[in-house]
Amino acid sequence: MIHKMVVQFSKLLGNLVPILDKAAAHAEAKKFEVEVLLQARLAPDQFNFIRQIQIACDTAKVAAARLADKEQEVPPHADTEQTVAELKSRINNVMAYLGTFSEADFADAAQRRITTPRWKGKWLSGEEFLLQHAIPNLNFHVITAYAILRHNGVEIGKKDFLGEMPYKE
Amino acid sequence: MIHKMVVQFSKLLGNLVPILDKAAAHAEAKKFEVEVLLQARLAPDQFNFIRQIQIACDTAKVAAARLADKEQEVPPHADTEQTVAELKSRINNVMAYLGTFSEADFADAAQRRITTPRWKGKWLSGEEFLLQHAIPNLNFHVITAYAILRHNGVEIGKKDFLGEMPYKE
Repeated sequence: MIHKMVVQFSKLLGNLVPILDKAAAHAEAKKFEVEVLLQARLAPDQFNFIRQIQIACDTAKVAAARLADKEQEVPPHADTEQTVAELKSRINNVMAYLGTFSEADFADAAQRRITTPRWKGKWLSGEEFLLQHAIPNLNFHVITAYAILRHNGVEIGKKDFLGEMPYKE
Repeated sequence: MIHKMVVQFSKLLGNLVPILDKAAAHAEAKKFEVEVLLQARLAPDQFNFIRQIQIACDTAKVAAARLADKEQEVPPHADTEQTVAELKSRINNVMAYLGTFSEADFADAAQRRITTPRWKGKWLSGEEFLLQHAIPNLNFHVITAYAILRHNGVEIGKKDFLGEMPYKE
């Protein structure tokens, strides 16, 4: 099931691409530069939209890499995005990286000891890290980015965040 | 792992209780009625804070019940909350309900066919429902509620949303 969760990381990031298109269309219709939205935030001491997307991307790539014990191979990103096109490129790049993982990569992930430099030697099991840290963190930054646009009048709804469901008849 | 995800549902809801306390403290310090925050929203066509909490609670309880094939037993809630105390009571009530589930309740959950009246006969597997529907929906409403308070100056940060991590040394 851990690989499926990583696939879901990719889905949540991918859903941001049409949301970015709606942000660009809104700015064009209202005749302002879309970069105004990209710099927006909900509070003065909150990261802006661009930073929310960057952190969401990093949360997903690093979580997958840590769970698969491939942290040395995680692709770097310079956090230099300033435009919709650059944000889409970042998202697509991380989705491509997430797509390189298979179920076998996560065979030992639930029990793996996960740590980060910030935790000063403390650790979580892979399962704890995934459920209590990675998933809520990724959702936090994706939904905060969504909320920044929603507050600024972009015509998006929860379905844009959730994406398509694989309904069967 | 599905039971652990339901425990995480409960954790996310429980983290809202100290967030509600911070909202009340902020209103008191700024000398306005906390109900102003409870009625707040980030866009005129968005559900207000109270409704976000109600939906988060319902998403968690119904998802657990559906995954355990106990939908007939899910406790009803009338959506009449108007105060911080009433919202806390709703949250605590749902957390108590979630606490009644055990790992055995979800033994067949991943493969179970999940449907809702809205889906007109279509269905998702339990695993699809959990990963693509229940978890992102719950996070969406909890984080939107958080964002409404954050935008209105309540002194909360991501750690309040995430809660404590079970770090080991």
